[in-house]
Amino acid sequence: MSVTAKKALQMIAAAEAKAGEIGVPMVIAVVDQGGNLVAQLRQDDALLVSIDLAWNKAYTAVAAKMTTETLGSVSQPGGPLYGIHTADNNRIVIFGGGLPIEEDGKIIGGIGVSGGSVEQDITCAEAGLAAY
Amino acid sequence: MSVTAKKALQMIAAAEAKAGEIGVPMVIAVVDQGGNLVAQLRQDDALLVSIDLAWNKAYTAVAAKMTTETLGSVSQPGGPLYGIHTADNNRIVIFGGGLPIEEDGKIIGGIGVSGGSVEQDITCAEAGLAAY
Amino acid sequence: MSVTAKKALQMIAAAEAKAGEIGVPMVIAVVDQGGNLVAQLRQDDALLVSIDLAWNKAYTAVAAKMTTETLGSVSQPGGPLYGIHTADNNRIVIFGGGLPIEEDGKIIGGIGVSGGSVEQDITCAEAGLAAY
Amino acid sequence: MSVTAKKALQMIAAAEAKAGEIGVPMVIAVVDQGGNLVAQLRQDDALLVSIDLAWNKAYTAVAAKMTTETLGSVSQPGGPLYGIHTADNNRIVIFGGGLPIEEDGKIIGGIGVSGGSVEQDITCAEAGLAAY
Repeated sequence: MSVTAKKALQMIAAAEAKAGEIGVPMVIAVVDQGGNLVAQLRQDDALLVSIDLAWNKAYTAVAAKMTTETLGSVSQPGGPLYGIHTADNNRIVIFGGGLPIEEDGKIIGGIGVSGGSVEQDITCAEAGLAAY
Repeated sequence: MSVTAKKALQMIAAAEAKAGEIGVPMVIAVVDQGGNLVAQLRQDDALLVSIDLAWNKAYTAVAAKMTTETLGSVSQPGGPLYGIHTADNNRIVIFGGGLPIEEDGKIIGGIGVSGGSVEQDITCAEAGLAAY
Repeated sequence: MSVTAKKALQMIAAAEAKAGEIGVPMVIAVVDQGGNLVAQLRQDDALLVSIDLAWNKAYTAVAAKMTTETLGSVSQPGGPLYGIHTADNNRIVIFGGGLPIEEDGKIIGGIGVSGGSVEQDITCAEAGLAAY
Repeated sequence: MSVTAKKALQMIAAAEAKAGEIGVPMVIAVVDQGGNLVAQLRQDDALLVSIDLAWNKAYTAVAAKMTTETLGSVSQPGGPLYGIHTADNNRIVIFGGGLPIEEDGKIIGGIGVSGGSVEQDITCAEAGLAAY
């Protein structure tokens, strides 16, 4: 019940394939249950900013035990968790593209994708997650 | 008139008991009048993100001399302290769960709880404070 | 096979008792196998600098899978890992007081103690570890 | 003349194979000519501290245009570059395991490996470089 290097590369390959279909280069990161990096890949010409974003999305999904999209929905101005994105050493991402990896009802890791629109990032992250 | 290690552990135990009643694992932190950590406990399966949030809530309550909930109410967009959450090395939390500890009308420390909904966090922080 | 909150508090209590015998206030921290904090306690009048040091010693022992004393012996000028203490976001400690927690031959966490001389820190950390 | 994602994964696979021969789990990172991450992999049970070290070794090899081993030899106390390891946001590593990737006499990236002894790290990094 942990995210192995092999599994992480499979997830990245699946997310990569989806990014290829979409036609936008992505950065894909996978972290374990402790929020520590297992594997990361930056596709050719992907945004530099996505290096940190992909990792931090994966981290956030594990650390908050929810998708970054869901976290974002409760962290808007006036929302219950507004301001959370500045309260954790700048690793919290509050827009979509980070998904927890679950096994037997337990969160054992996270995948984060960055590089396209938020919708495209989510689509690629879902493709990666499906390969787990 | 200071938060001793013994008192901090008592507060944490009381907050823990309340978290057990609620059924959500929490992280509980207690800081002294200097905003420096006295004690912290992460209950089993509590969110990783709560490690920093609990500490920072306790810090914020001391540093701003008010509950984090109150601070949050004046730091929304359009409010008088909007933006304060990015102006202090990412330690300011602007949603509920951080309470100042007062003795003889003086603030001598803070308690911060994170892990559940903001309401649950506040409830546990209040239980911890009551044990002071 | 993980460091529960209960176990962490037991370890801290044992290290505390040893610090009491020695007569020097300490900060004691326990982290899990991901290097994330489980529990921390600062005894009354312990050094503020020890808040970070205790945590980082515990982190280092897990992250490097060895005691911080051993790591220190190979990180002196001219040694094979000289310079490691500045290459990991300032969390690596290269003097004694951090010990890995092992179970069935696997490292599942770490304990770090700071506040006295290095020898005193090690003695307290060992007392804490023995309580696991 | 740049380190593509595909090339980076090939280099990582070669370094992985060598780590398998040696029998020590490693973290392997590849950066481009800008010192920015292309790909990284943490083998199962590799040291957490190696996540940062592998990346920073790869970065250092590009940023200083020499192996981290060579840089280490000139940055010991008394050496001409003593102190360089603290002068760049904690990203400079001054022991072996980071190699520049050259093409047509130009440095176009770097590979960094961490997880074993320095000698083992260098051996794996060389195996990765040979796969370029």
